This record gives sequence, C-alpha cells and structure tokens, in this order.
Amino acid sequence: MTDGLNERMNRQVLLKQVPEGLAGPEDFETREVPIAPLEPGELLVESHYVGLDAALRLITRDSDEFLFRVSPGDLVHGSVAGQVIESRHDGFAVGEYVAGSLGVQSYAISTGEGLERCDLSQAPLGAWLGGFGNSGLTAYFAVIDECKPQPGQTVLINGAAGAVGTMAGQICRLAGAKVIGLTGSPEKCQWLEEELGFDVAINYKDDDWFEQLAASAPDRLDVIFDNVGGDILDESLKLIGMHGVVLLCGSTSQYSETEMKGPANYIWLGTMRARLQGFVVFDYADRYAEARQRMSRWIAGGELKLPCHELEGGVDQFGEAFRQLYEGKNLGKMLLKLPAAG
Amino acid sequence: MTDGLNERMNRQVLLKQVPEGLAGPEDFETREVPIAPLEPGELLVESHYVGLDAALRLITRDSDEFLFRVSPGDLVHGSVAGQVIESRHDGFAVGEYVAGSLGVQSYAISTGEGLERCDLSQAPLGAWLGGFGNSGLTAYFAVIDECKPQPGQTVLINGAAGAVGTMAGQICRLAGAKVIGLTGSPEKCQWLEEELGFDVAINYKDDDWFEQLAASAPDRLDVIFDNVGGDILDESLKLIGMHGVVLLCGSTSQYSETEMKGPANYIWLGTMRARLQGFVVFDYADRYAEARQRMSRWIAGGELKLPCHELEGGVDQFGEAFRQLYEGKNLGKMLLKLPAAG
Repeated sequence: MTDGLNERMNRQVLLKQVPEGLAGPEDFETREVPIAPLEPGELLVESHYVGLDAALRLITRDSDEFLFRVSPGDLVHGSVAGQVIESRHDGFAVGEYVAGSLGVQSYAISTGEGLERCDLSQAPLGAWLGGFGNSGLTAYFAVIDECKPQPGQTVLINGAAGAVGTMAGQICRLAGAKVIGLTGSPEKCQWLEEELGFDVAINYKDDDWFEQLAASAPDRLDVIFDNVGGDILDESLKLIGMHGVVLLCGSTSQYSETEMKGPANYIWLGTMRARLQGFVVFDYADRYAEARQRMSRWIAGGELKLPCHELEGGVDQFGEAFRQLYEGKNLGKMLLKLPAAG
Repeated sequence: MTDGLNERMNRQVLLKQVPEGLAGPEDFETREVPIAPLEPGELLVESHYVGLDAALRLITRDSDEFLFRVSPGDLVHGSVAGQVIESRHDGFAVGEYVAGSLGVQSYAISTGEGLERCDLSQAPLGAWLGGFGNSGLTAYFAVIDECKPQPGQTVLINGAAGAVGTMAGQICRLAGAKVIGLTGSPEKCQWLEEELGFDVAINYKDDDWFEQLAASAPDRLDVIFDNVGGDILDESLKLIGMHGVVLLCGSTSQYSETEMKGPANYIWLGTMRARLQGFVVFDYADRYAEARQRMSRWIAGGELKLPCHELEGGVDQFGEAFRQLYEGKNLGKMLLKLPAAG
C-alpha cells in the first residue's frame, strides 16, 4: 500500500531499564518505527491522550499479582484515547473516537478488541481515560456497590486528589455522606474543598494530620476508600467504625518500594466487625453504560466534575509525566496531551 | 450472717506485673480472701473450670481496642464454669450449673448478669467454656454466616488445633468443604486428621509448609480462617482465591509482641476481590440457642467433637496453664480443671 500513511512514523515509548525507586524519564526511551499497512479487520488510531496510571509502576515487578508486566525493550503499556484515521474494520469508521490499552505510542494498529467508542457528547476525549474511564468507573462501582455510603455517614478518601479519589469523593457526597479527603499539599486541600465540594481536606504532610482526621470524624469512619496503602492506610484503620468498609482500591505509596508494608492496625477490623474489601472494576464491565448514563446526568446538572491534569507534549514526555504523577503534582487524572489532540 | 460459708476462703488470682513476652506463672499471684455474705439478688458460684483464652494476654495492653484491661493487683479476667452453691437470686437455684466472666477465683459472687445456664445434657460443663461456649459459637457463626464454605471449596484454618480452630475446621467439613489445618507439631497434625477429620494438616514449623499448603490447595483458598496473624496470615494471603473470605478471628502470634506485624500481602485481596472480615461473636447472642441446638444434633450423631485439654490444679495453676496455652500444648480448648470439679 502506498496511501501516504507509511510515510508517517510511529513514535513508541519503550521501557529502558527496570526502575529503582520512583520511575522517571531515565527509565524510558523513544524509538521511531514505520507504521505497517493495515490488514483486513484492522484499524489505525492516532493517539490524542495517554493516561498516566500509578499502578504502571508495577510493570516490572516479578509477580503474578500485577497486570502489566513489561521487560526492558518492550512497548510500555498505556491507556490511550484517540481518533480512528484509517480503517479496514467493519465496526469502526474513520473519524470515530476510541480509547483502549494501545500502549504509549503516537499511532496504534488495533483489531478493535478491547477498544471502546468515546461519545464526546457525554464527556471530553481525555476524560474517557479518567473520570469517565476506568478511574471514574472504579470510583462509581466501588462506592455504589461496595462502600454504600449513607446520608449522615462519614467517608475518608486516601489519595483524594488523584484520578480515582476525586471521583470517589464526589460520588460519596452525592450519596449524602460527609467526605474527608487526605492529600499532599495545602493547594490540593483548598482545591478539593472549593472545587470538588469535599467537606474537609487534610494535608497528610502535616505532623498532626491524624489528630485533624480524628477531630473531623468524631463518630469514626464508616468508609475508608484507600488508594495509597502504607502508613496512611495503617493509621486511618484506627478510626474505622462499626461494620465499616475499607475499600482497597490501590496502594500507590507502596508501588515504588521493594518491600510492601502491611497495615498492622488491621486488627481494628476485628474489633469493629469491619472489612477490608478488594475490588477490581473489570468485574462490572456489563454495567459501564449504566454508570456513564448516571454520571452524565450528574455532569449535566453540575453535580459532578471530571478533573483532568494535562501535560502537553510528545510521547517522549511520558517519563516526565510519570514522575510528576508520583510527585503528586496532578489534580485529578494525569494525562499526557499529544500534539494530535490539537 | 454466720451460715458457715464465711469460713470458706476464696482464692483469687491477681495480676502481679505487666508481662513481657509470653505470660507465665511469674506474672500472677494468689491471695485468699473471705467470701462475703450474699446480698439479696446475689448468688455464689463455686468454680469448676477456668477457660484459658489467648486474648487474655492483651489484658495489660494500653489500648481501647481490647476488652480485658487489667492492672497489677487486679483480679484476672477469666471465663469460669461452676455450680451455684448458694442463692438469694430468684432466677438461679442452688445446684444449677452456670458459666460467665467471673474472674479467676475459686468462688464468685454474681448478680446473675451475663451468667449463662449450662445444660449438661447438651455438653459437659468444661465444654461450655470451649466448643459449646464462646469458642465454638465463634467458629459456628463465623463459618455459617461469614465464610459460608461450599462443597468443593477449600478452607484453611490457621491455628487449627486451638479452641476455635478445632471447631471451625469440623464445621467447615460438615459444610462439605475440603479443610486444611495449620498447626505446630506432627502430633497435632496427626490428631487433627485422625480425630477431627481434617483433610490435611500441615506443621507450620516445617521449612516447606507454604509449598505443602500450595500443593494442597491447587485451586487456591476460598476461605482462610485466621486465628494467629503474623507471618502465617501474611504468607497464606498469597493463596486467597477469587471472592475469597479471610475471617479475622484472632491474632495469637502477635499478642505477646510489642509491635504488631501487618500482613503486607493484603494487596492480594485486591487482585482476588477478596475480603478480610472482622468478626465478634457477641453480635450473634440472640442466636446462641439455635447454634447450640444444631451443634447438639451434630454431637449426638458423632459428627462433631468438643475437644478440651484439661490441666488439673488449683487456681494458683492458672499461670502455668496460660504458659502451656502459649506453648501450644493444647488440643482444643485449654481448661484449668479445679478440685471442685471432682
């Protein structure tokens, strides 16, 4: 085929080395490869946004427990939202917007498997990788189906300013609960309270964060929505309330550690007849449409925001974006916005 | 009053000092005090059995999370089964058998509050402190209401030869599950398999205990019934299965430690959508009679045993019995059988 596309080169981000500590630019490298001609049943996606996922730090961990194993030299796993620019697939037309696990690259050839159509009348394209994508769906089902916060109850969101935490906090508020967020800077605290309607936001870097938390939850915590693990999970377990739910959504504080820390205060679960509940959003795949319809109504009514934090640049900026994610610079979902997004 | 009872002296076990490491005889002392005359509404119980409870090690821990706080010089908390030998209480007649939290002493005056009548046609008196008492009721409700093992499923009991473990294992077998027990000696393994019908028993002191466990549970574990905490809980979490239940019943391995160890492998709960579930038997108090009726039928049918491990002696042997409990010498519920038991 000589349709002109072959002249365009695809830039791909590869894992250069197994990261130690925080991952950053030095752990990734970029290569250019020609875009292969499409086979029948394939389509070509131009990447507009790459979603930054903290769990990606685990790509090199040698354990079955993680999803995204990648070795040095491999294309880095990544969720991408973009536009179909060529298609030999009956189900996808040129011009459609799609999202999926296409890898960190400027173009991707797909068979359509696992690819999701993005309706931009529901949410902007980037949000399909964040509050309207897996992060938001995770928050939605974890809150609605597992945490079930009630009016008058108190919820703690650990990692409140992140992709999932921002959504979980807002949805808990919509359910009528008092929402307390833990995050890592005064600016993020202010933003959570003023922009997202959190009742209280506490900076976990304050020496007295636990005392602030205890004072904000005099009747203990009915729900702890944990995205961070480590010491914050461990300490907050001391405040779990009777029949409480500790939703285990992520453990970002531990992803860069060689040795995980277990929460010694798990014994409080016993005293309080509470539970530490594992959760994986993919179990709810057949209800994504239902969740998005409901979220759309909340968005239209001004009750729900889909916060995205965009870093603009080429795919070679992926390592930098990843480091900023781990430095906690993001308000909401961290996205790399590629030049093709316009 | 000069009814003769005042001539009998009551021997009481007091906490002598805050234990370090394992508690033992040196941490307790005995004193003799006269038995006070009964006031109206009171009854006098002669103690026949004292139940040894591993959680009692926590009596001196300075934390709200534990039930039995005791200071040096105080009467030691203890569950006792005995006989009413004098009564000015309308609800209890002389000769009746009762059990309750009466403290480690040879006689106790009670208002009847919290006292339970023991029907010896259902189970022998000592068992009312063990398999037919809180230990057995804990196992019953934790298994039936929370763990819900199904035929074909695999259950692991950590601390399998203990008061709760022996009962939990037997009840899981009655539910049709494959039952694996972890315990601390080859003799206890043999006893669990031959006397209590465990499918497999593994000595956690074997270097390859985890490999033995993994080989015995090729389809992973649907239930982990944990009485011990620490490294055994942590390692076994790696084998929890999809939608599994880890029932948090006790943490005996940690009760003598100054610093609790948290289970770093709790992240497996996430991957497996499993839950670590706290549990307190007192929530089921209004169903104790139902549980005992069902257990009685199993006992009558030869399907359930109520293993008790009796050490004979006076109340001054309490410290020795407590040390033996922590040395894992018991098969089933550890009891101190007092001379009054005949």
